[in-house]
Amino acid sequence: MASKTAKPASTLATAAPSFCEGARPLPVQGVRAGRAFALDDWVADEVPVALEYNGVSHAVMLATPLDLEDFALGFSLSEGILSAAHELYSVEEEASEQGITLHLRIAGEAFARLKERRRTLAGRTGCGLCGTESLAQVARDLPRLGAPGEGQVLRREAIARAMSQFVELQTLQQATGAVHAAAWCSAEGEVKWLREDVGRHNALDKLIGALARHEVRAGEGFIAVTSRASFEMVQKTASAGVPLLAAVSAPTSFAVATAARAQMTLVGFARGQDLVIYCHPERLALERPALAPANCSAH
Amino acid sequence: MASKTAKPASTLATAAPSFCEGARPLPVQGVRAGRAFALDDWVADEVPVALEYNGVSHAVMLATPLDLEDFALGFSLSEGILSAAHELYSVEEEASEQGITLHLRIAGEAFARLKERRRTLAGRTGCGLCGTESLAQVARDLPRLGAPGEGQVLRREAIARAMSQFVELQTLQQATGAVHAAAWCSAEGEVKWLREDVGRHNALDKLIGALARHEVRAGEGFIAVTSRASFEMVQKTASAGVPLLAAVSAPTSFAVATAARAQMTLVGFARGQDLVIYCHPERLALERPALAPANCSAH
Repeated sequence: MASKTAKPASTLATAAPSFCEGARPLPVQGVRAGRAFALDDWVADEVPVALEYNGVSHAVMLATPLDLEDFALGFSLSEGILSAAHELYSVEEEASEQGITLHLRIAGEAFARLKERRRTLAGRTGCGLCGTESLAQVARDLPRLGAPGEGQVLRREAIARAMSQFVELQTLQQATGAVHAAAWCSAEGEVKWLREDVGRHNALDKLIGALARHEVRAGEGFIAVTSRASFEMVQKTASAGVPLLAAVSAPTSFAVATAARAQMTLVGFARGQDLVIYCHPERLALERPALAPANCSAH
Repeated sequence: MASKTAKPASTLATAAPSFCEGARPLPVQGVRAGRAFALDDWVADEVPVALEYNGVSHAVMLATPLDLEDFALGFSLSEGILSAAHELYSVEEEASEQGITLHLRIAGEAFARLKERRRTLAGRTGCGLCGTESLAQVARDLPRLGAPGEGQVLRREAIARAMSQFVELQTLQQATGAVHAAAWCSAEGEVKWLREDVGRHNALDKLIGALARHEVRAGEGFIAVTSRASFEMVQKTASAGVPLLAAVSAPTSFAVATAARAQMTLVGFARGQDLVIYCHPERLALERPALAPANCSAH
């Protein structure tokens, strides 16, 4: 949904939140339906957030300053800096003119691993894949998800049910039209945890952090996201041990290949009752497919 | 547009490209309008692309393997590794099982700067902002764009005109529903250059590379993107000397602040004839705005 539905047209100049955490009102002008207007608009906050482990600067992310404790834990877990939530002792937020620094205190063992990783990658300055300087480092080991045929089978209606709950729960998106959401849903399609951020990776990291902090048995449900499904979204979902990822938009070829390898069920274009399954359909109960000619578009 | 319009519903199982560069057909199954189907669907390629400068690995990006020469140049320019196109001597693509390596040969002066930057940032392993380890490094110097009142004034219809040309030009998006586009448009709103990628930053870097390679006087037109406008999108646009960025979706607060500082006109929610101006409206000829109450939503 996120950038897709944005704000419904009917809310123009009618929805007037007096306060919205993670957003701020800014004066704008514009044209809508041929009429010029000038008013204050709610714009989502994007703030440089620096992550510091045991006093050592690690990276700066641009994120929405909400649920940063979840973000700190989720980022650390999905990037493999921590192997379990209990390795994070504390998170302190320090705000300054330039942004927010998250001071993480982590277990000695995890910090030793991080130092070793920093040593072997010394000199890296680029961006892109986290801690990745050459192609050989791209495909990290993924956790072994249960074989698709062995675990529970979801009814496809559970995905539609989860998606139908998003709009109401995306409070920041409703106010700004600028943010993505990631949600963990029960096998029945009940949205239990939802996190928002201007970055789709951040939203997923926040969700993964929330699941870990609250000791949710994440493998028993699925994750739904308002964005596309790229390689990194699949990798993060697998790292959280979640066997199904449903995205509102399309996956990429690398995402499909990665999900196939991790034995994850990957669903795209989950809109209303519709969906497309890109790999491991065994986890979803579908009617028997009609045969259709090859080489045509699914959407 | 990108993730927003995705593929129009009417193309379901009708549009059947026999070949689409940057995408591949994959067998899928799913449900649409209550009917199950199984067919081959076109999925956008996402490939790890390693950037190597004069033999030294720098970063790995996940990108759509199209227009990689533009990408190599545009990334190098917008990240400040090169200060001008002539500093790039050659780009060679090397494909492997794991992805694509771009071997860039760059001028000695630029390489010396890069080595110095790598030295001072030694040890960085994180991801996020390119080459950024602490908050103090976030806000790079932006090029001075001409004062908004001094240059040409665009008619707002030029933006609508540009946007109306996107769908037809986004060939990869039409096939896959998974990619973003960035386009450079003349002051009259004619789309002159358009690049697509699974990543919105990559699409913009490819565009910036194409403009530099073809010696386009980029400051005489504007850039339109199918995504949201985040801080980095504004920073890259400013680095290309382009005074106006129009996004289909919302900007973030940091994007607005950065555009304001760079004297860039930032337009969001550019859809059909509608648009919202977030800063420096002086560059757009608008009718006189009607007064509206503060603190209400603009969309």
